Amino acid sequence: MIALSLQEVQELAEAILRHHGFSEPHVHAVARAVLAGERDECASHGLWRLLGCIDTLRAGKVSPDAEPEVIDQAPSIVRVDARGGFAQVAFERGAPVLVEKARANGIAALAINRCVHFSALWTELEVLTEAGLVALACTPSHAWVAPAGGSKPLFGTNPIAFGWPRTGKHPFIFDFATSAIARGEIQLHERAGKAIPLGWGIDAAGQPSTDASAVLNGAMLTFGGHKGSALSAMVELIAGPLIGDLTSVESQAWDAGSKSSPYHGELLIALDPKRFLGDAVDQHLARAEALFDGIQNQGARLPSQRRYEARERSLRDGVKIPEKLYEDLQGLLA
Amino acid sequence: MIALSLQEVQELAEAILRHHGFSEPHVHAVARAVLAGERDECASHGLWRLLGCIDTLRAGKVSPDAEPEVIDQAPSIVRVDARGGFAQVAFERGAPVLVEKARANGIAALAINRCVHFSALWTELEVLTEAGLVALACTPSHAWVAPAGGSKPLFGTNPIAFGWPRTGKHPFIFDFATSAIARGEIQLHERAGKAIPLGWGIDAAGQPSTDASAVLNGAMLTFGGHKGSALSAMVELIAGPLIGDLTSVESQAWDAGSKSSPYHGELLIALDPKRFLGDAVDQHLARAEALFDGIQNQGARLPSQRRYEARERSLRDGVKIPEKLYEDLQGLLA
Repeated sequence: MIALSLQEVQELAEAILRHHGFSEPHVHAVARAVLAGERDECASHGLWRLLGCIDTLRAGKVSPDAEPEVIDQAPSIVRVDARGGFAQVAFERGAPVLVEKARANGIAALAINRCVHFSALWTELEVLTEAGLVALACTPSHAWVAPAGGSKPLFGTNPIAFGWPRTGKHPFIFDFATSAIARGEIQLHERAGKAIPLGWGIDAAGQPSTDASAVLNGAMLTFGGHKGSALSAMVELIAGPLIGDLTSVESQAWDAGSKSSPYHGELLIALDPKRFLGDAVDQHLARAEALFDGIQNQGARLPSQRRYEARERSLRDGVKIPEKLYEDLQGLLA
Repeated sequence: MIALSLQEVQELAEAILRHHGFSEPHVHAVARAVLAGERDECASHGLWRLLGCIDTLRAGKVSPDAEPEVIDQAPSIVRVDARGGFAQVAFERGAPVLVEKARANGIAALAINRCVHFSALWTELEVLTEAGLVALACTPSHAWVAPAGGSKPLFGTNPIAFGWPRTGKHPFIFDFATSAIARGEIQLHERAGKAIPLGWGIDAAGQPSTDASAVLNGAMLTFGGHKGSALSAMVELIAGPLIGDLTSVESQAWDAGSKSSPYHGELLIALDPKRFLGDAVDQHLARAEALFDGIQNQGARLPSQRRYEARERSLRDGVKIPEKLYEDLQGLLA
């Protein structure tokens, strides 16, 4: 393993993105997202992700210098046309308008269109909870997941994320795929020649399978049976047609086998507790803390606890990445 | 079984509610909800539910003649104080304002406070999809469900419902508990002396159990492990403290063992596709239809299909209810 300080992680990420022609806003925004992933020990959204970013660029499937356009769509809707760039800059341009609209009207939506997304939604939600807002986010991906009762890939891994602000504490945030497991997890099993548990997916004939390759060529399943499947359909609808953007099937068709990051849309909804509660806001947010105590006092964990513990370690000690990954990243600077 | 026309169902429901002193708005609104449940073969939300309604009234836990107050809370938030009455009248008063605000601003929220709720969310969503809106609804209940990794009841069965309008067709609607199963299903197993499947709940010692009574005295589990648990926490937060209303623990404390319907709040969010999409709305709603085709063409079902099929049967043939239930209902008229 190679030890890196967070400063070094950021500089490495920025150097790679800059070397490949990304404009400065994209260099900074994508590097920040990658740094957050590495820092919080979400390796799949950390430095490793840069390999996919550059592959996506080489496939011509992301614009390195897109300048997002912010559109004031309605009193409580802001749209950002990412113009084919990574989602991070589009989010950064739209977020202040979303915050302003949520504060003015109580609830507001940010629709990001035509963005290339690698689905680290929690980093975006932290910006909104930091502003004191409650927030929801979701995005489709590529058609890898069968609906409950079906056998053919139709839905993406379709993450749903939710954030709740906490005074003087890390926010309550969850961010999970509506698929039973991340696709990368199945790929890791395939590479290691290991069987996967039943319930992760089915083979091309629609039969339950523990063979990672068979499932990657068949279909993944949603978490939670028909309920998870219903939620996955909801993500397709509200972060797809509702905002005039692609479903996971359509995004995959556009990808045309290049295995790039998905190109589609994202929907964020922000709610302002101050507008719901007025002067009573502190009293009611304190009752939310009682709910969190009720979870933790019985030995259960809050959804983001593992990530915050990792963050504390990384801020203190830096991070370690596999030597092979470090070499691959250095290769991107050649 | 006793055969009843839908007209007879409605008249019976209205007669019972009127006999017990409910005011005319409550008589009509609650009877409509009960009729919808019976018609759609959701027996637990049909005529059977009236027994619980009258028990709740006798326990002094619902106001029979509350006149809801509609509060224009913010440009995109309407609140309705149900003043201790059943939720249906409060929803009917708030829904037109929610529709108006969603159409004006693109997205809006309806917070119903201090209502007694029996969680038939899909009937409310049909009103909003009928108005061309996309909608989400959720509500806590009583603390019966342990968080993932815990062993003590904390969350309610916390349903989440979602609706999507379809031109010339029944809307796409799902409405499910975030618990692994409805509490009533476990009660039915208990009454029948049947074992329940593993995964529905744990006993008072926190151990997985197939004993219905042990689980009813222990804790139910959420669907989908830590993901369902996270969603259940979200419902507690956004339909509880965010709108200044009770969590499932607090609602149960207020109930004080009377086993009445829960008393708390409900949050609805409505989004107007026309404001998101402008002139392109028809083109994009057609792409949603392609997603539904993609589900049905592989033999999977849309979430509400069973309910719509039941509705068609009931509209044609009327319904049948158990003789014992019919007698119990007649008993409420004595």
